[in-house]
Amino acid sequence: MPLLVMKFGGTSVANLDRIRNAAAKVKREVERGYDVIVIVSAMSGKTNELVNWVEQTSPLYDAREYDAVVASGENVTAGLMALTLQEMDVPARSWQGWQVPILTTSAHAAARFKDIPRDNIDRKFAEGMKVAVVAGFQGVTDEGRITTLGRGGSDTTAVAFAAAFAAERCDIYTDVDGVYTTDPRICEKARRLDRISFEEMLELASLGAKVLQTRSVELAMRYKVKLRVLTSFEDTDETSGTLVCDEEDIMESKAVSGVAYSRDEAKMTLVTVEDRPGIAAAIFGPLAEAGVNVDMIVQNISEKDYGGRPTAVTDMTFSLPTNQVARAQKALEDARAAGAISYEDLVVDTAVAKVSVVGIGMRSHAGVAATMFKALAAEGINIKVITTSEIKISVLIDRKYMELAVQALHDAFELEKAA
Amino acid sequence: MPLLVMKFGGTSVANLDRIRNAAAKVKREVERGYDVIVIVSAMSGKTNELVNWVEQTSPLYDAREYDAVVASGENVTAGLMALTLQEMDVPARSWQGWQVPILTTSAHAAARFKDIPRDNIDRKFAEGMKVAVVAGFQGVTDEGRITTLGRGGSDTTAVAFAAAFAAERCDIYTDVDGVYTTDPRICEKARRLDRISFEEMLELASLGAKVLQTRSVELAMRYKVKLRVLTSFEDTDETSGTLVCDEEDIMESKAVSGVAYSRDEAKMTLVTVEDRPGIAAAIFGPLAEAGVNVDMIVQNISEKDYGGRPTAVTDMTFSLPTNQVARAQKALEDARAAGAISYEDLVVDTAVAKVSVVGIGMRSHAGVAATMFKALAAEGINIKVITTSEIKISVLIDRKYMELAVQALHDAFELEKAA
Repeated sequence: MPLLVMKFGGTSVANLDRIRNAAAKVKREVERGYDVIVIVSAMSGKTNELVNWVEQTSPLYDAREYDAVVASGENVTAGLMALTLQEMDVPARSWQGWQVPILTTSAHAAARFKDIPRDNIDRKFAEGMKVAVVAGFQGVTDEGRITTLGRGGSDTTAVAFAAAFAAERCDIYTDVDGVYTTDPRICEKARRLDRISFEEMLELASLGAKVLQTRSVELAMRYKVKLRVLTSFEDTDETSGTLVCDEEDIMESKAVSGVAYSRDEAKMTLVTVEDRPGIAAAIFGPLAEAGVNVDMIVQNISEKDYGGRPTAVTDMTFSLPTNQVARAQKALEDARAAGAISYEDLVVDTAVAKVSVVGIGMRSHAGVAATMFKALAAEGINIKVITTSEIKISVLIDRKYMELAVQALHDAFELEKAA
Repeated sequence: MPLLVMKFGGTSVANLDRIRNAAAKVKREVERGYDVIVIVSAMSGKTNELVNWVEQTSPLYDAREYDAVVASGENVTAGLMALTLQEMDVPARSWQGWQVPILTTSAHAAARFKDIPRDNIDRKFAEGMKVAVVAGFQGVTDEGRITTLGRGGSDTTAVAFAAAFAAERCDIYTDVDGVYTTDPRICEKARRLDRISFEEMLELASLGAKVLQTRSVELAMRYKVKLRVLTSFEDTDETSGTLVCDEEDIMESKAVSGVAYSRDEAKMTLVTVEDRPGIAAAIFGPLAEAGVNVDMIVQNISEKDYGGRPTAVTDMTFSLPTNQVARAQKALEDARAAGAISYEDLVVDTAVAKVSVVGIGMRSHAGVAATMFKALAAEGINIKVITTSEIKISVLIDRKYMELAVQALHDAFELEKAA
C-alpha cells in the first residue's frame, strides 16, 4: 500500500472545526488508496501557554520536566484528530512519542532522532488501520523520559516518518500556500514556486523564510524525501503548493530562485585589531562561548604605521542578531580586559538588514553577483558587507532600504516570470 | 525512610500560585524526614475542557482516544509541580502513568488498577530523589495504551500508591478542611469530625458527601491505608482535617456520626403488580439493562379482590436519580408491552430527597431508628420509603423538607457535640 505523510501545523488544527477540515484532507488521500501517517502540532497558542507556565515556575528549568509539560499539547491534538477521523469512518488511532516509540537522544528540549522502529505502526496498518495520527515535536529517550525536538519540530517529525516509512511524499500543510520567490507582503510581484531544490530551501529557511524548519529540510535532503508545502485553508490537489525536491527533479534553471531577507541584523566592527595567526579564534571563541550566533564575517587587512613600526593590523566586521549585541559587547570587552585581544574601537550598527539571492542556477550562470550589485547601486543602496556561497549571495545594507532592495532584486532577476 | 502520599485536587493546583502553595506543604514533610509521593489532578477546569472537546468531536467516542486526550491535563500539573519543588531545592521528578508504570485493566475511561511495580520509583528514591510527583487519574494497559480511572480517580490513585508503597498515611488535600457531621451549608451546627471509620465514610461518600471518591475509600479499607482529608488553603499540622481509619482506631462511639442527603432523587411506584416468584427480576432486570441506578426498593404485599378471584398483588416502589426517570419509564413500558410484566399504573414523584443517618455505633446502640422517626414526625415530615443497613438508616421525604430534616436529625443525635 503506498503511504503518505501529512503534517498539520498549529494554525491548521487550532480548533475543532479546523481539525475536521484537516481530517477531510486526510480522508481524501485514504480514498485515493493511501495509508497515511498524520503528524500534528499542538493547537496554536497551546505550546506557548505551556512554555510560559514552565518559565514562570522555574527560570532555569530542568529541561526534562520542561519536555514532559510542553509535549502534552500535541497529545491532545493527536487524540482529537483520531476521533475526528473515526467519526468520518476512517480507521485511525493516535500515537504518542513513547508509544511508537520515537527514540531520540537525551538532549532535552533539542533532541535528535535516533530511531523510529516501524513494527508497532506497521502491525496496526496490517490489521486494517488506515491512518496513524502521531504527536509531532516529541520523542522518548532509551530511559523512558519524554523529549522534545525544539520549536517547529513537528516538521522534522514528519520528514523523519516519511524517511522511516519510505513514504511516497511528505505533505506539510500550513497557513501559506507554498514557497514564494520572496515575501509577498514586501513584494507584490512575488510568485509561488512549483518546485524548489533542497539546497535552495535550506538557504531560504535559514535566511528567514519561516515556511519550513531548517532541520526538516536537511533531513529531507539526506533521505531524499519529497517534501511538499501547501495550504490547509483551501482545496488542494496533486499540483498544489511547492514541491521541495532533488535538484535533478527540477526542470527550470533560472540563475536565482528567490530573494530572502532578515530584518533584525546588527553589524559590529573591531577597529584596528592586531593581525596575527589565531586572532580570529581569539575573537570568535569568546563570542561562541557567550552563545552569540555570528553570521557574516569580513576581514580587511591594512598596514598602519605606529610610531615608525609598521604593523599588520586589520578591521574585523561581523553580523549578528540585534538582540545578541549586548552579550557580544560584553564578551569582547571581557576578552580585551583579559589581554586576549586588542582593538582600538568597537563600532556597532544596529540598523542593518540582510538581503540574499538564492539559486542553484548560480553555479552555471555567470554574472549573478554583478547583476545584484548593479540593481542595488541603481537604487542608491550602499552595500556594507558581502558574503557568498555556492548558491547564495548575501549583502548587509541599511535597514531602511530593505524592502526596496528586495523589490529591486526581484525585478532584476525577473522572478515574477516562471522559467 | 518513612513515606507519605500527598494528593492535591484540581482546585489545589488551579494555577501556579496554588501549585507553589501545595509544594510548600510537600517540602515541609520532606524536612520532617519523609520521602513523599505526590499525586496531582489536572488544574481545575482543564479536564472539563478536554472532555468537552472529545464529546464535541465524537459523541460516541472511542474510549481509548478519550483517555489519551483527557489524561494529558495531569501530565502538565505533574511537570509543573516537579519544577516548583526543584525551585525550592527539593529533589523531585514527575512520572506519567506509563513511566511508573501504573498498570490497569483495559476498561478505558473506567479502568481499575492491576499492579503498581515499585522498582522505578524506589530506584530514584535510593538515588536521592525526595519527591515523586505522579500524574493522577491515569494508567496504562499491558498493550501500552493510556487509560483513565473515571472522574475523581486521583483520590484512588493516591490510595493505590499508599498501599503499594506501604505509606505511613495518605493525605488528601482538597478545598474543604475535613469531613463534617453534615453539610455546613445546610446546617450551621455541622462539626468537623476528627476521625471517621472507613465504613461510615463509604456510606457518606456514596450518599452524596463529595469529599472523597467512593472507590478510594473502598481501596483504603481493603488495604488499611490511613487516609486523611484536609484543606490545602490553610496551614495544617498533624492534627488537622479528618482521619479516615479502621473502626478500632476510633475511640468515640456515638450512635450516629453523620447525616447525609441526596437532593436529586425520584420515586416510582408500580401500582398493582401481580405478585409471583420472579416478579422483582422481571421489573429490575430491564431497568438494569437500561442503565438505571435503582437505589431503595420497597414492596408492599396486599390482597385485592378481582371479580371474586382473590389474587396476591403488590405495589412496588423504588427510588432513582431524577435524570434517569424517562429512561426507566420507557424500559418499564416496553417490558409491559412485551408482556413480561403487568401493572395498573406507574406513579412518578420527582420531588423527593433522601436523608440518611450513618454510624458504626448503631450496631451497639438501640433505638436509633425510633429517635430518627420521632425527630422527623416532630417536624411534621412524612416518610415515604425507609431502608436500613447495618450502619445506616435512609428515608425518602418530600424535597421541600430536606434541609429541615437534616437540621432536625443533627439536633436529635446531638452531632454538634464531640463524643
